[in-house]
Amino acid sequence: MHLMRFRDPAGAVRRGEYEDGTVSFGGRTYDVEDVDVLPPSEPSKIVCVGRNYAAHAEERNSEIPDRPMLFLKPPNALAGHGDTVTVPSGKDTIEHEAELAVVIGEQCRHVDEDDALDVVAGYACADDVSNRDDQSEERNWVRGKAFDGAAPLGPVLATPDEVPADANIELRVNGETRQSSSIEHFIFSVPELLAEITEYMTLERGDVILTGTPEGVAEVEDGDRVEVEVEGVGTLEHGIERQ
Amino acid sequence: MHLMRFRDPAGAVRRGEYEDGTVSFGGRTYDVEDVDVLPPSEPSKIVCVGRNYAAHAEERNSEIPDRPMLFLKPPNALAGHGDTVTVPSGKDTIEHEAELAVVIGEQCRHVDEDDALDVVAGYACADDVSNRDDQSEERNWVRGKAFDGAAPLGPVLATPDEVPADANIELRVNGETRQSSSIEHFIFSVPELLAEITEYMTLERGDVILTGTPEGVAEVEDGDRVEVEVEGVGTLEHGIERQ
Repeated sequence: MHLMRFRDPAGAVRRGEYEDGTVSFGGRTYDVEDVDVLPPSEPSKIVCVGRNYAAHAEERNSEIPDRPMLFLKPPNALAGHGDTVTVPSGKDTIEHEAELAVVIGEQCRHVDEDDALDVVAGYACADDVSNRDDQSEERNWVRGKAFDGAAPLGPVLATPDEVPADANIELRVNGETRQSSSIEHFIFSVPELLAEITEYMTLERGDVILTGTPEGVAEVEDGDRVEVEVEGVGTLEHGIERQ
Repeated sequence: MHLMRFRDPAGAVRRGEYEDGTVSFGGRTYDVEDVDVLPPSEPSKIVCVGRNYAAHAEERNSEIPDRPMLFLKPPNALAGHGDTVTVPSGKDTIEHEAELAVVIGEQCRHVDEDDALDVVAGYACADDVSNRDDQSEERNWVRGKAFDGAAPLGPVLATPDEVPADANIELRVNGETRQSSSIEHFIFSVPELLAEITEYMTLERGDVILTGTPEGVAEVEDGDRVEVEVEGVGTLEHGIERQ
């Protein structure tokens, strides 16, 4: 099942079932073109993982970590399918990073790896939009990764049965493929990530884990259209505005 | 005025006026001992500033930064006045950091320094509880600073007129003074911090800025009682549980 949060033509926020370009809620079916698609979740926090594909760690000249490398994006970073992200002005290098997003289904702490998938509501596509100018200068990646719109998320929440363990993940800019890999190349699996993160903090229903990006990250320019496709989920599309 | 969020004896969450050990809401007055004191704000994020007092930067062998050093704590880090913070288990060094907290009064972005105080609802006391074992090993301070309970906040929200520009800030452990300074020693002022942070992100009503800690940070042990007092605000008290 694919669940879409949207604002209906009357302005009400709903969560309906998405199928073939339509979304249904409460006995009514809308063409997706006629509604505002919203991020599929309202997280209290987004916990992100760096360097979770060996080939990306190599292209960034980074070592493969011996435990997950974590960072945070707050709710202001969210953007939805179809939105245009206005990145911080005056920066030289803004890059895309295609990621699988894990959406949490229940409040949890000290999750065991063996049962970790029980707390997963489903998956979405995300772009970890990164401002390298500041990221390379600051200890904690706040200006670099937590700016408004730095986490486009969507277009739907796909339930776990929809997403194969070796799902392809691909990112295209203006139709040209930039990143293409599979989530089977994770260094740390989703259960390992959930166990590690919840050793330190409670995850709330709706919270999001971004699982890292594969190789192929590159710059985005003003007016670019970015698509992130995860097999079994669908395709998230967003624009870029650079000033 | 001093505003206290609390859960009344019937279980309802209220925000009342605090005065001399009592809190009043809706024509009723309660003894503070008879209510559960809650954090005075419900932030969507806590934006924290490192090294904002020169004497603390020196004691940590850190350089004085040329722009604010930022990091994040998510809402799971909140704890209230009177709560006991259970810190991550098996760590060698957990330390206190007394801080002035700024509570945001309205949604804002691209705030001008000259008008920045218009978006401040008031001030509170905070402890930036820090797990040095992980902080010293990780690039982004997530395990080190964003664990559950890492941001005790309270006991009240003091309106800006209550807090002098040279307010004293003091932290005591089991009654013994560990940190004693004044917010006049900030490297970056509150307006400078608000202008810099909102260049990158929207602040929401209720969001919190932690403004850095003065010199004197030191370890806390199991069973310690920590008090953070800011002149004009009051005294936040919390316990520490180490496992």
